[in-house]
Amino acid sequence: MTTSDARTPASKQSAENQGDEAGKSIGWHKGYVQGSRPDLRVPVRQVHLTNGKDVTLYDTSGPYTDPAIDTDVRRGLAPLRENWIVARGDTEEYAGRPVRPEDDGVKHTSPRGGLRNLDAVFPGRPRQPRRSRDGRPVTQLAYARRGEITPEMEYVAIRENVEAEVVREEIAAGRAVLPANVNHPEIEPMIIGKRFLVKVNANIGNSAVTSSIEEEVDKMTWATQWGADTVMDLSTGRNIHTTREWVLRNSPVPIGTVPLYQALEKVDGRAEELTWEIYKDTVIEQAEQGVDYMTVHAGVRLPYVPLTARRKTGIVSRGGSIMAAWCLAHHKESFLYEHFEELCEILATYDVTYSLGDGLRPGSIADANDEAQFAELRTLGELNTIAKRFGVQTMIEGPGHVPMHKIKENIDLQQEICEEAPFYTLGPLTTDVAPAYDHITSGIGAAMIAWWGTAMLCYVTPKEHLGLPNRDDVKTGVITYKIAAHAADLAKGHPGAQEWDDALSDARFEFRWEDQFNLALDPDTAREFHDETLPAEPAKTAHFCSMCGPKFCSMKISQDIRRQHGGSQEEIEEGMAAKSKEFAAAGNRVYLPIAD
Amino acid sequence: MTTSDARTPASKQSAENQGDEAGKSIGWHKGYVQGSRPDLRVPVRQVHLTNGKDVTLYDTSGPYTDPAIDTDVRRGLAPLRENWIVARGDTEEYAGRPVRPEDDGVKHTSPRGGLRNLDAVFPGRPRQPRRSRDGRPVTQLAYARRGEITPEMEYVAIRENVEAEVVREEIAAGRAVLPANVNHPEIEPMIIGKRFLVKVNANIGNSAVTSSIEEEVDKMTWATQWGADTVMDLSTGRNIHTTREWVLRNSPVPIGTVPLYQALEKVDGRAEELTWEIYKDTVIEQAEQGVDYMTVHAGVRLPYVPLTARRKTGIVSRGGSIMAAWCLAHHKESFLYEHFEELCEILATYDVTYSLGDGLRPGSIADANDEAQFAELRTLGELNTIAKRFGVQTMIEGPGHVPMHKIKENIDLQQEICEEAPFYTLGPLTTDVAPAYDHITSGIGAAMIAWWGTAMLCYVTPKEHLGLPNRDDVKTGVITYKIAAHAADLAKGHPGAQEWDDALSDARFEFRWEDQFNLALDPDTAREFHDETLPAEPAKTAHFCSMCGPKFCSMKISQDIRRQHGGSQEEIEEGMAAKSKEFAAAGNRVYLPIAD
Repeated sequence: MTTSDARTPASKQSAENQGDEAGKSIGWHKGYVQGSRPDLRVPVRQVHLTNGKDVTLYDTSGPYTDPAIDTDVRRGLAPLRENWIVARGDTEEYAGRPVRPEDDGVKHTSPRGGLRNLDAVFPGRPRQPRRSRDGRPVTQLAYARRGEITPEMEYVAIRENVEAEVVREEIAAGRAVLPANVNHPEIEPMIIGKRFLVKVNANIGNSAVTSSIEEEVDKMTWATQWGADTVMDLSTGRNIHTTREWVLRNSPVPIGTVPLYQALEKVDGRAEELTWEIYKDTVIEQAEQGVDYMTVHAGVRLPYVPLTARRKTGIVSRGGSIMAAWCLAHHKESFLYEHFEELCEILATYDVTYSLGDGLRPGSIADANDEAQFAELRTLGELNTIAKRFGVQTMIEGPGHVPMHKIKENIDLQQEICEEAPFYTLGPLTTDVAPAYDHITSGIGAAMIAWWGTAMLCYVTPKEHLGLPNRDDVKTGVITYKIAAHAADLAKGHPGAQEWDDALSDARFEFRWEDQFNLALDPDTAREFHDETLPAEPAKTAHFCSMCGPKFCSMKISQDIRRQHGGSQEEIEEGMAAKSKEFAAAGNRVYLPIAD
Repeated sequence: MTTSDARTPASKQSAENQGDEAGKSIGWHKGYVQGSRPDLRVPVRQVHLTNGKDVTLYDTSGPYTDPAIDTDVRRGLAPLRENWIVARGDTEEYAGRPVRPEDDGVKHTSPRGGLRNLDAVFPGRPRQPRRSRDGRPVTQLAYARRGEITPEMEYVAIRENVEAEVVREEIAAGRAVLPANVNHPEIEPMIIGKRFLVKVNANIGNSAVTSSIEEEVDKMTWATQWGADTVMDLSTGRNIHTTREWVLRNSPVPIGTVPLYQALEKVDGRAEELTWEIYKDTVIEQAEQGVDYMTVHAGVRLPYVPLTARRKTGIVSRGGSIMAAWCLAHHKESFLYEHFEELCEILATYDVTYSLGDGLRPGSIADANDEAQFAELRTLGELNTIAKRFGVQTMIEGPGHVPMHKIKENIDLQQEICEEAPFYTLGPLTTDVAPAYDHITSGIGAAMIAWWGTAMLCYVTPKEHLGLPNRDDVKTGVITYKIAAHAADLAKGHPGAQEWDDALSDARFEFRWEDQFNLALDPDTAREFHDETLPAEPAKTAHFCSMCGPKFCSMKISQDIRRQHGGSQEEIEEGMAAKSKEFAAAGNRVYLPIAD
């Protein structure tokens, strides 16, 4: 982890240099765990402690933090999985759909014409899209059902420190998904399921109002550097196709999208002009580019729309409101719902994972767990069953705004209705009164719902409800959600989760400040805050901190207590146990009457 | 609420001006609810909405936000409760204990001599301390048991929007405390108990290493301005007595302390030199100044100390480690435990509330809910019973560092063992791995434990474990904990709690941006974030936000849906219900086979 731009060699230096900053050869470096084949090496974050020990942490930062790899955003990342995909022999390259100006929101009639800046077109190596050779599913779900343990499955097994067979079983049962489009060979495989580490998604994306391609690519690498497990590109403005190409070719994590947003751009924002054909064309366009999972709001059905009329905040999901508008304008059932099986056939041929969207999620505490929300959830359950029949991996999206006492009902109902398919929730926000702090109002709900079984958390930044997140907001959102996810891993008793906390707490008790910083979710800010009050270098090895000062430190006194009772842990315990016995008689007496 | 210095008339202006900023006479102003007597006026925060409605919120900011009151930190606040206290006729003024140089950490032998800056001595009106006339308890608990509803009880009843009798009952039963030292007449009474709004405490205090008297007083007013219900002065450096005097005379909220910290200063930080006499003298010194509640670590007993030897982080409570060091140094039972009844007699004569400290609270996830922690809790239960016998109001302090799945056991055990005495917890932090973000790791645990019955939450700032909080950290800590407290009020179904969320959500759905800002916990930051992406004044009334842009807004589409179905709510529902019926047949069919 480092705050400097991950895409430049400089960042690799600074990663290595953290040790030097401390004047010792400590800090961390990118390590790899070798799998069963030479091209299967799983990245880890190796933290070297001053006491000689090492701590190994899960790493999502991709090749950008490996000084041995020369990365270049204009070239893109190496296609790590290409050989694995080709070796399976069930896919073929093909000409693919021609890219049209409309894909970037440019009308032929548009006076503006062309891209905002033509050199924005991704310059990386030419590639042809790939799809199933015979139309049969080429999904990790299909392989898992056939009993195959793919390299991708072995990869995530090593990452999660579990048996590969466990990974295969969870995927085969539909309790976990491994999003990996055959056209996105650059990703480092990861898995989303309640038996595995809780994952975090970070949203990026330009809008008609702000931001550029460069910013979005930078936000993606920045987010994964701080721990984002997947990234959703929610661009809604122009250059959508080109922005997505840059993001995909440079992303080490699965990329998700909401195809409906781009489809709407193609009809110039007029929901009623949307058609199945335009939507289908957009899905194929994005599948050929390599989008790993797509949010599909097929659960927003015409009969449910009236259920939102009484709501305090109506429909707050963009996709949900677009589909509701379409349904009412045409007075017809949703074209997504009606063509769902055809959509399944398409997704199966690229291994695009469904993220069935909750278009009717509550947008306020008042609307939580209402009729509209749960009516849609039941439909998502039906669609989940259909998707599985077509061999498509599927997860289910969840709310939203929900007060604490109504959170558990959401995960329990979803798990029951959707046959334990992975739940993927946005927070939920536990109150509406704190705009500018919704990473916190939602971090509370996220930690709780993840503890109870949610597999992935979609982050919320401080700008939620107010504006588009900048670089700092993205970092704050990711760190907040990594906290929620790890707190849930601890509460679920995930094997190995507590080792990280223990290592940091040991460092804290022993005043190994540099180790505390290097083990922290955000070493830079931890170090910076410490230096504000005790900037001097010796302070980083001082046996006190600024909270109490030198002569008045609970940790120090607590250690003195140990020392008074001999060096070794055994001696300490003997000595103390002896005293304990001595005082047992008195100690067991409830209250000693005052002598005087 | 305003970010400018609360103690200057300027801040009052800016509070008034929030409306002008918006170009309209909206915003908020300080209001009062008149009680049964002229001098009983309960402050509220009146938010004026652009739709003509008003929202009334709980207000902790004191006279500083009332433009009609001229405040001056050098004079102190008006003694609001003085007449009520005198009228009871059960207290008397007396000479009191002379203030000594040692009280400010200055040794006679000290070459430094005198205060760091002599003009620091509080210049306000001279006052004599007050105590019980005949040694009998002059506590709100004693009055409540006698069936008396004091002006203080009526005051909090109005604040909490409940019957005064409910307040009296909860106090009489020991399920709630109303901290109000007879020597702190400046406070606006508040109550701490699970049947009332969850409260938030903010810690301030200088240390041997940093900060000044001025800073501490400013932090206090700053914290209460953002919603702190009580403030603890944890000063450990020099000028402790004088700093506390400034804080008390200017504080509209109850002030808590840990007398042990000052006592330790008096023996130059050598725990083994502490004596009951020095401690008792310090308690009287602070009680005469007006400290409303005191943390007493009388539960740290000698036989429990060995139980901490096996711990990952030993004893992390400062008070706990001091008492442990004393017990072991003298090989004797804690003098606080042995003299507890005598201490009760003292506190009862000033109405100082006990906050029985959890000196053995866990300092890491690994140590949560262990033998040492719960052994101390059982002793706190015994002490709670004794305190009640002496008519002393009592609350119990709780952890600390606790993973989510072990939180509920803490509140359940405490409520059982301590006969439902108010629980007052520090977080708990739900993971150890995020130094610099412990306001968030602990905000998660705080919201949960408050939902389950904790009455007051002690805030944690981003600087926890790293350094002393500055002004920004104090604000961030308070806002984070107000979020946790309000989320808990919602989950507990506290009457009226959701009205605030509903008002803000209505404003959000109707694009009343200024109303959203004025209703927010932090209007300044919400406005600032919005302006970052859409600075133009018209944008604050624009019917879209920067997240989606003008043509692509879920709220707008959602409103269009309503409009399509007629103006009035009735028409909307009729129209939609009709459509709903029409589609019922199809809608109820689980899946429609694809036509083509």
